Amino acid sequence: MPAANTSQIVIEEQGPRDGFQSERLLVPTELKLEWISSLVGAGLGRVQVASFVHPKRVPQMADAETLCERLPSPGGVVFSGLVLNERGVERAISSGLEHIAVSHSASDTHSRKNTRLGLQEAQVAFASMVKMATEAGLRVRGGVQCAFGCRSEGRIEPDAVVAMVEAQLAAGVDEIALADSTGMADPNSIRGLVRRVLPMAQERPLFLHLHDTEGRGMANALAAMDEGVRHFDTALAGMGGCPYIKGASGNISTEDLVCMAHQMGFETGIDPRKVAAISARVETFFDRPFPGKMHRVLANPHLATLV
Amino acid sequence: MPAANTSQIVIEEQGPRDGFQSERLLVPTELKLEWISSLVGAGLGRVQVASFVHPKRVPQMADAETLCERLPSPGGVVFSGLVLNERGVERAISSGLEHIAVSHSASDTHSRKNTRLGLQEAQVAFASMVKMATEAGLRVRGGVQCAFGCRSEGRIEPDAVVAMVEAQLAAGVDEIALADSTGMADPNSIRGLVRRVLPMAQERPLFLHLHDTEGRGMANALAAMDEGVRHFDTALAGMGGCPYIKGASGNISTEDLVCMAHQMGFETGIDPRKVAAISARVETFFDRPFPGKMHRVLANPHLATLV
Repeated sequence: MPAANTSQIVIEEQGPRDGFQSERLLVPTELKLEWISSLVGAGLGRVQVASFVHPKRVPQMADAETLCERLPSPGGVVFSGLVLNERGVERAISSGLEHIAVSHSASDTHSRKNTRLGLQEAQVAFASMVKMATEAGLRVRGGVQCAFGCRSEGRIEPDAVVAMVEAQLAAGVDEIALADSTGMADPNSIRGLVRRVLPMAQERPLFLHLHDTEGRGMANALAAMDEGVRHFDTALAGMGGCPYIKGASGNISTEDLVCMAHQMGFETGIDPRKVAAISARVETFFDRPFPGKMHRVLANPHLATLV
Repeated sequence: MPAANTSQIVIEEQGPRDGFQSERLLVPTELKLEWISSLVGAGLGRVQVASFVHPKRVPQMADAETLCERLPSPGGVVFSGLVLNERGVERAISSGLEHIAVSHSASDTHSRKNTRLGLQEAQVAFASMVKMATEAGLRVRGGVQCAFGCRSEGRIEPDAVVAMVEAQLAAGVDEIALADSTGMADPNSIRGLVRRVLPMAQERPLFLHLHDTEGRGMANALAAMDEGVRHFDTALAGMGGCPYIKGASGNISTEDLVCMAHQMGFETGIDPRKVAAISARVETFFDRPFPGKMHRVLANPHLATLV
């Protein structure tokens, strides 16, 4: 599903997965469903709704199956789930989801921490997961975590990431995602990697998943847009990251990216005011301000007049 | 004072003026001096230390003269003061400062609110202020406030800003600043205006003063860097904006811009760790977290290892 034209930016909302997963306060399934429906109502055409990981590791995602069973079914909207192992693929297939994101890390240390597999083993497991999913008729987005850096290993060699993307494409993924999981990318490293990966992806969408940990999230998005990237992950109000780690930070904000895209003449199909209204409810639920900017501007009658 | 070469980014720290001015809790002069010295110690070659406005309007700046008298005198460091009227120029001259920033607004509404002068009157007053200052031997940075937008008037016509810059250059300023006072700029509007103003400025430095109100501050900085801008205003930890207006936001963060510049291969001469240490003290004083990101990363031993 590439963008219809080059003036279109496609956004996948990751709040319900990447945003909620690190929150200790559990969101009732009912409320998740309400927010997800509202996100679709705000124009989000793609939402990552859950991850199929062990509920003991991520309690917030323990209701993945229940949630997926009860998702609305608006035409054309892609609901996706994140999987990290074969058990997760099985669960995703049973859940009825039609789209999953399978990713592994470009950092050996991070990979072992997250999945207990080294890079080579993770690549073999990845191919097997993609095979399972595609045979079951699911569409698969492949993803490279820590594609720009890892807090343990430092900068990641672009060659290593390119090789992983090659292997993911060979395994048969429908889409590719490069994730700056640690927020260590900068505009130059984004440009360098995107220039190599975009031509490899060809007609397959290339998503960038950016975190704002070091304050460069939006600058990195701009660098990617300049290079022709038209697919981004974001989270409402920039939520995400672990609220208990000082200095950790969320995804780039849905409202911030949508507004920047609109002002630059791109279309997204998304109403940032409606997203901001959802962010306000989510902030109230978690009783904590999220780091994005536009949700606050849009909630302020004085400031919002001229957006 | 243009950058020595194109790989050099010059940063003017605006925290002590634009950062502090909206804070109700008054900073003792002693503490301001200590922080300013620390900023110089961290490598900041330019610091805007005060504004010469009526103390009733901005109580935080009431100690401008006392502060300027007691500033350290490290060689080559530019301490600047902001002035908005002739009385301010007189005060700045008496203060012993060698550099002032004189600015007026591209928005008639904003200009009348701030200085009670319409655009035409402000332009006449501007020329007169520059004359007073240069005759007294001061160097002057001219500035256009609200160069990209105003909350009352909306987008500002680039032609109007270009005409103001022409008039400021004709009045004899040594430097030019374009201020996105409202945070309404986007990468395209930055590019459009910078492409016109950079050639006009010729050998005179062109500063961009960016606010992160709408989350695009760093993306706008990147757009300007891509166009060849090498002079930026920032504030430590991204402080600034009115803390009592929900949704208002500060300047782009010194630490964030310095780190992005370094990662992109630019030199700044600034040690972001030392700036972050000052930000920590300032945050403690105001008892409130500031919105920048890198000061928090740099304060976190786990995250800071690989910056």
